[in-house]
Order: sequence, then structure tokens, then C-alpha cells
Amino acid sequence: MPRPTYFGAIEAGGTKFNCAFGLNHEAILEQKRIATVHPDDTLREVEAFFDYCVEKYGPMQSMGIACFGPVDLTKSSETYGYVINTPKPNWSFTPIVPRLEKRYGCPIGFDLDVNGSALGEMRFGAGRGLENVAYVTIGTGIGVGVIANGKSLNGLLHPEFGHISLHKLEGEPDGVCKFHKNCAEGLACGPAIEKRWGAPAETFPIDHQMWKSQAYYTAALCNAITLAYSPQRIILGGGVMTQPHLLAAIRKEFEVQLNGYVPAISRSGCVESYIVTPELDNMSGIAGAFVIAKESATNAVSQSRENDLAAV
Amino acid sequence: MPRPTYFGAIEAGGTKFNCAFGLNHEAILEQKRIATVHPDDTLREVEAFFDYCVEKYGPMQSMGIACFGPVDLTKSSETYGYVINTPKPNWSFTPIVPRLEKRYGCPIGFDLDVNGSALGEMRFGAGRGLENVAYVTIGTGIGVGVIANGKSLNGLLHPEFGHISLHKLEGEPDGVCKFHKNCAEGLACGPAIEKRWGAPAETFPIDHQMWKSQAYYTAALCNAITLAYSPQRIILGGGVMTQPHLLAAIRKEFEVQLNGYVPAISRSGCVESYIVTPELDNMSGIAGAFVIAKESATNAVSQSRENDLAAV
Repeated sequence: MPRPTYFGAIEAGGTKFNCAFGLNHEAILEQKRIATVHPDDTLREVEAFFDYCVEKYGPMQSMGIACFGPVDLTKSSETYGYVINTPKPNWSFTPIVPRLEKRYGCPIGFDLDVNGSALGEMRFGAGRGLENVAYVTIGTGIGVGVIANGKSLNGLLHPEFGHISLHKLEGEPDGVCKFHKNCAEGLACGPAIEKRWGAPAETFPIDHQMWKSQAYYTAALCNAITLAYSPQRIILGGGVMTQPHLLAAIRKEFEVQLNGYVPAISRSGCVESYIVTPELDNMSGIAGAFVIAKESATNAVSQSRENDLAAV
Repeated sequence: MPRPTYFGAIEAGGTKFNCAFGLNHEAILEQKRIATVHPDDTLREVEAFFDYCVEKYGPMQSMGIACFGPVDLTKSSETYGYVINTPKPNWSFTPIVPRLEKRYGCPIGFDLDVNGSALGEMRFGAGRGLENVAYVTIGTGIGVGVIANGKSLNGLLHPEFGHISLHKLEGEPDGVCKFHKNCAEGLACGPAIEKRWGAPAETFPIDHQMWKSQAYYTAALCNAITLAYSPQRIILGGGVMTQPHLLAAIRKEFEVQLNGYVPAISRSGCVESYIVTPELDNMSGIAGAFVIAKESATNAVSQSRENDLAAV
């Protein structure tokens, strides 16, 4: 029996579920954005969308989900494929993967949202040709997705590098994170900027101290990422990064803070290719979800071959 | 032609090269420690040792080297297998792998020293059965080796997580690292302790403030490792960790600093299995070097099969 042609992809975010059906992010047949409300309602709408697609185009070869965290990514765990304990009302311990697996009977790949964006950019965008990439989203929070040796970096849970400690600039107030006084997210996410400076980032003139402060914290995060993962490239995305002058300021401050410590970067003067912004605009996540779908289909095929061999 | 039986293993450290020949770290036929002096002299002695072994027992199937850094681990690079620019006199750009490859004509695996120790402990020691492990050595410096998805985490260069920024305790002086005012190595390595408190760690009574300070910094480093890599276990080795009471203090302080943030650890009360000391004593590195040797032999075999298939 030939394998089905199409894939399902979900970028499952905290405010919306972006669902797509097709071959890849450049060949989408159907797409729908569904608000992230109560999981019963959201998932019912998600299923209605994919039911419609399957009815119209045939079954899915596999699905890929890039989901807001925390999620359980340990295959052997009883809550694998769940959103686990989250402050988001009603979403703690929602069995996303088991529910969709039961309904569609196809392999389902599952990863963290920022890892999905990192994968999407690595395959099709600002990280093409590389195998070690970090993707940072700076918006209502700060998330860091890491691809190492071509695969998402996941361990006991998954990295939470947006919460790494940074040194606060003198005279500035503590960050807004309720877990950590001075972590990257608490100091440099959108709400932190708004609380510290009294207005959203995009309302400030480009020579305002607010941008210097933001460049400092973002550069410090890039330095910590460099020490932690030694990626080939850092891709900075999210709402706060849409101000074009910020990128140049971050690169400059990054080199100051790096202090010549990682010769491979500072020697070649290639900070311009080391710290970049995404190339897929708002498609990084859904592109990554298609990649996750395809990987799960490939894994399922090799698993089934191994089983066949074992049965002989 | 049957493959040769034995492997060569080198734990190439900044003060000595620990060389071994045999099946694995538990079946060593010959072993020799060679001082790390000028590379010409050290490598000549290393070769004399392996020449002797090969003469006596036959050729090596492969070799594994776990080397002090910085090293070039990028296979496609012109300086792959070199120690690169290091403050260590005469060792900058020493072509360790090319030199031994030419002499022994067998596959040679090459990795960072702390990654070797992490691999050794993961396969045979305190990380048995796991796939995601961090190994920290706290001695004259601080090094962090990371195994993610069963493989060493290497990117553009390799992680240098011993230099991650930590918050300094109030009233304490800056750290001793010449690159970073307040990084983990600068604040918590052996020489930092000695400079801050006026004597080596082991001379202080167990209720001295020095141990509280050391537990604080080490716990902060474990927290940063948790946020960065989400490993299944952190293994703390090196000279400073040989004081048994320190481990308990670090675990306690780690839970305070974690503040319930990673539910998987704090929920199950399993900090005792999360932060541990090595089980292989001073054999972690050489055990890892044998693992690296075997992996390079396996890779060479699959590569040669692929080439055979391509040639058909």
C-alpha cells in the first residue's frame, strides 16, 4: 500500500494553534488559526480542521506538533505527548498527542515550540546548511530552542534557557519573572521592557537608553548561549526583535562582552553571520512542525522495518 | 581479514597524558602516565608507548583521545584534531590526531577531556543507563562536559560552560578568571577558593563559611546546567569535590535556588540521584577514551560499508 501523500502540522502556541495540511510549509493546501482557549474547545476545533482535510484530500502520512511548554518529551513516560503542569488555566496535563494519535492512527512527532522554530529556520531559513543552531524568541516571554548535531536538545524535561541568570545593569530594577529575580526572560521580555520603561518597546526613539539596555541583556543572553551550546548561529526572533536597529546594537554589544573569548567568532569578524534574525517571518514554527511530522514518519518506517526483521 | 582486537586510549590532560592499551578500562594490558611538557617530547613518549604495545600485542583497531581544550572538533576543518590556540606554552596548533593517524593508520576518535569523562561515567559509572548527562570537574579550573541524546554536545567550537556568569555573593571579591569578572570557574575553582580564603579548600573545617560559599556557587552552576541542558543527572568530579560533606551542602542549596522551578526534579525529591559524584574515581577519563575509540571504529566500519555500496 503506498504511503499517504500529505502531512499535518500544528504550531501550538499559548494564544493560538496554527494548523496546516499539505506537503510542507511552501505547499500548504489548508491552513487555520484557532484560538487557544479551553483545551476541550481548542482541540475540538483542531480535530474538525484535520477531519475536513482528511475527508477532502485523504489520510495523513504523519503529523508534527511544535507545542508551548512545559511538555513531556520522554517517550517512555506515562505522560509523553502531554502539556504538563503549566500556569495556563485548564491546560495542565492535556494529552495532545494521545488524543490525536487515537483519532488519526498515524505517527505523531512532538517537540517544544521553540525547537520547532529552530528546526524550521535550520532547514529552510536563516540556518540552512548548519547542524547546530539556537533560536531565541523574545516576546511576551523568552524561549530558547537548540538543535545540536541536527536534533533537538531535550533531556529530563527540556532546556529552559530563557531563565538563565544575567547580571543586571546598575540602577535598573529587578526583572519580572516570578521564579527568578534576574533571569533573561525577567529582564528582557516585552513585559519587562514595558514595566521598566513605562511603555512598549516600539514606542521609544532609537537613541533611547531603553534600546541600549535591551541590547545589553540580549547580548548577555547570546554570550551565555555561546558558552552553553557553541552553536554555529544564533537566530533572534519574536516581537521585540522586529525593530531593525536593535540587531546591530546587539551584535556590537555582544563583541564587547565576548572580550575575544571565543576566537572562532571574534577572529573572523563574522558576528554578522553569527547573530541573525529569522528568514521565514512568521512561518518558522509551522515549517518546523512539518519537519517534525516528516521525521516521525521516517522513524516509524525504520521502526517497522526493524520489527519486520525481528519477526523473521 | 579479522579486525585487530585492541584499542588505544589517551586521556590527554594539561599536566599528564594518561595512555592505555587494551580492551577497555577494565581490561588494560599496558598503561603509562606521561608528563605534559613540550608537545614534541610528550608525543614522542606517547608514540614510544603505543609502538611498544603494538609490537607486543599487535595493531590497534582504533584509538580514542579525550583532550584538554580548546580543540578543533569540526571534521571538515583544516585543523581538525588539533589543540588550537591555548595559553599553554608551545601547545597552540598541535596536530595530535593527524600525527597519530599517520603513524598507526587506524581510525582515531577525538573529543574534549570533560566530554570523555562524561562518556565514561555515562557508560560505566554514575550515569549508567542514561542518555543525557553533564559531567563537571572542579579543580584548577572548571570544565563541563555534556552528553545529549547519547552524543557529545559540540558545535562551532565546544561548550565552555565553566565560564557561565554567576551572581557573586555579597561582600565577596571578584573571581580569578582573566576573561570574566564573575564566571563559575573564576568564582569556584580551586585557585579561586585559595585566593578568596587564603588557603586551599581541604584545610578548612567543615563548618567554615568557605564551604557555604562553595556550595552556593556550585549549586548555582548546577542550576544553570539544568536550565541549559536539562540533563538526567549531573556528576560533580575534580579535586575540590573530594570533600564528602560538600555534596550534601550543594544538593540542599540547589533545591533552595531551584525554587520549585523544574517540577521533574523537585517534585520527586530526587536531588540525591540528580546531583552525584563520579563512580569510576580517576578512571572516568580513560574509560571515556576507550568509548571514543570504539565509536570511531564503528563509524569507520559503517563508512566503509557505505563506500562499498556506493562503489557497486
